[in-house]
Amino acid sequence: MSEDIQSRSRLTDLLRPDLRGQSAYGAPQLPVAVALNTNESSYSVPDDVVEAITARVAQVAPDLNRYPDREFVALRTALAGYLQIATGVELSPEQLWAGNGSNEVLSHIVQAFGGPGRVALGFTPAYSMHPIISRGAGTGWVDGLRNATGADYDVDAELAVQQVREHRPDIVFLCSPNNPTGTAIGLDIVEAVYDALPDGIVVVDEAYAEFARPGTRSALTLLPGRERLVVTRTMSKAFAFAGVRLGYLAADPELTQLLRLVRLPYHLSSVTQAVAEAALEHAGTMLSMVEDIKATRDELAAVTGQLGLKPVPSDANFVLVGGFADAAAAWQVLLDRGVLVRDVGIPNHLRITAGTPQETQTVLRVLRESIEDGSIVLQEETL
Amino acid sequence: MSEDIQSRSRLTDLLRPDLRGQSAYGAPQLPVAVALNTNESSYSVPDDVVEAITARVAQVAPDLNRYPDREFVALRTALAGYLQIATGVELSPEQLWAGNGSNEVLSHIVQAFGGPGRVALGFTPAYSMHPIISRGAGTGWVDGLRNATGADYDVDAELAVQQVREHRPDIVFLCSPNNPTGTAIGLDIVEAVYDALPDGIVVVDEAYAEFARPGTRSALTLLPGRERLVVTRTMSKAFAFAGVRLGYLAADPELTQLLRLVRLPYHLSSVTQAVAEAALEHAGTMLSMVEDIKATRDELAAVTGQLGLKPVPSDANFVLVGGFADAAAAWQVLLDRGVLVRDVGIPNHLRITAGTPQETQTVLRVLRESIEDGSIVLQEETL
Repeated sequence: MSEDIQSRSRLTDLLRPDLRGQSAYGAPQLPVAVALNTNESSYSVPDDVVEAITARVAQVAPDLNRYPDREFVALRTALAGYLQIATGVELSPEQLWAGNGSNEVLSHIVQAFGGPGRVALGFTPAYSMHPIISRGAGTGWVDGLRNATGADYDVDAELAVQQVREHRPDIVFLCSPNNPTGTAIGLDIVEAVYDALPDGIVVVDEAYAEFARPGTRSALTLLPGRERLVVTRTMSKAFAFAGVRLGYLAADPELTQLLRLVRLPYHLSSVTQAVAEAALEHAGTMLSMVEDIKATRDELAAVTGQLGLKPVPSDANFVLVGGFADAAAAWQVLLDRGVLVRDVGIPNHLRITAGTPQETQTVLRVLRESIEDGSIVLQEETL
Repeated sequence: MSEDIQSRSRLTDLLRPDLRGQSAYGAPQLPVAVALNTNESSYSVPDDVVEAITARVAQVAPDLNRYPDREFVALRTALAGYLQIATGVELSPEQLWAGNGSNEVLSHIVQAFGGPGRVALGFTPAYSMHPIISRGAGTGWVDGLRNATGADYDVDAELAVQQVREHRPDIVFLCSPNNPTGTAIGLDIVEAVYDALPDGIVVVDEAYAEFARPGTRSALTLLPGRERLVVTRTMSKAFAFAGVRLGYLAADPELTQLLRLVRLPYHLSSVTQAVAEAALEHAGTMLSMVEDIKATRDELAAVTGQLGLKPVPSDANFVLVGGFADAAAAWQVLLDRGVLVRDVGIPNHLRITAGTPQETQTVLRVLRESIEDGSIVLQEETL
């Protein structure tokens, strides 16, 4: 893509130097039968929620000549209500903040607490927008190690603390459940990192939290007494609302207050607020497929394992599957056969979203056939 | 507001240094009978457009589990179509770019072509978000002079060129019609500034273009052959759609392509795209009040002049009115009497949006009464 974008040179010369030669972030948007590449929900919005959304838009539409409520009080209240139901954690609307996708709230944090001369650290591989958003705001980036062996994607608490002490970052990103690897981290790691960093913001990205296996506690439970802790969430994944672009976070009220220094005024439209509020009133319906998706995910992991691939354990709505001799080649074979998955750049691995049971059967069938007919080659055991 | 935001100190210490002590941008959102402070349209969205919007939302709502079209092709096509009707300028969808409010598209420009070590220049007083967005991205800011005398707010072409040559900014902002002063600038000034700056981006902010007096040409007509020229527009003002937050720009296709390096992926929601497209199909209806608003604006200027105030000539949907002995005190008097206008920080001046004829009669009546009963004091002639 970088060739396309930057083939002509006149304007490219005027670009901010660190952007030159870069390519735009974004998975290919291709018309395929089975799209399992962006961890969306494969389940359409149910009819009664469509009706509620439409009715709410009809209600606000006459007043769209006016700017939105810049403070989106009703939406923050609704988000606090949702989190109480979903996690049992009681939060005040003053602790909530939202943006057009969690990317925007992450960007608010980086703009407020990062910037030139400052450093953010994440334990990679993790959500690839964390370094992009950090660098975009002129913040330095440190790729932290998840563990010393590299044998799996677990985060080693001691090593995490050691790296935080060494680099003293202004912002640390923890991603739990982790994208693209799938596993949640224990809250002991969040606590240890927080305590090791007396002058930094600790962000726990919980975009996939609703899919976590039983017993996984949310970092929201750690908020009391930790004014530098931020937990980000989204309506794009379990809530099946990616098209609305509503990401949010919970933190100390003082911290959310400081984010108002960097948000663009009226950043959340009246329509976005109305539509998100309407859907939050139907949270039960919107989340009703989560258990099915978790079952599908577990099946995806089990069967890919049986096929000789190496699925990574997952608390999310996707499975990172290792064991491909050539991930890019396998990606293309799947695409040619109508299944779009994600090549996240980890050698020998592809990330596959847990879709509907039907979609999952299709991707598993195509994988099986492609391995059997030799068009997808498995990685040889290196041990 | 800065006291409220930053009274506690622990987190404030961790803020990016240049944000400390700042306050959040945004006009007070107060419940008043007559709100003439943010240059919204006072006219509600007409019934048939409400219906079209609602129908379109009903259509896209079932698929909100999916991410939006990241390239918003249909919306860019619709915006190009609108500009052709509104200005006669033919543009390709590849020349269009949009964001959640023109603030976001301005921010994309600054992120791509500004940044640390770079400088933006604007001729102040102009739109106050220009320096805020520039500094927010670490870009230096130069307050340029509009003219040497300071007697009015006209931009002197020769002085503009001189300042551009002296500071060699990476980005120049021209605002036409200018907010908060109201007047459009001639295209000769845009051309002169562009030619004087071979290595910089020239942004013409035309948020209020549809209100300009007859004969005012859009800088869109200058785009051919000027790859460093950007013209920004918005649906918030004449289009009466502030609640939807849809700002856009037109430029060379290569320039819009480079903005993809800094936009957050999927920044425009499916709902925003759908609602904006539906309204653009009813552009005639949405713009039907523009002539009325222009007439109201002219009346606002004429009558405030008769009251002994000093209105600045306006090509926008507001009038900057000078001649108050104490602008802040006058602002409060008007607010106490149910009329909210804008204190833009220019001594002796208040900015008043041209609302409905009724709202305009109210603000003029309250002004007259307040001057007569002595609660608003006029500035003494200093000449």
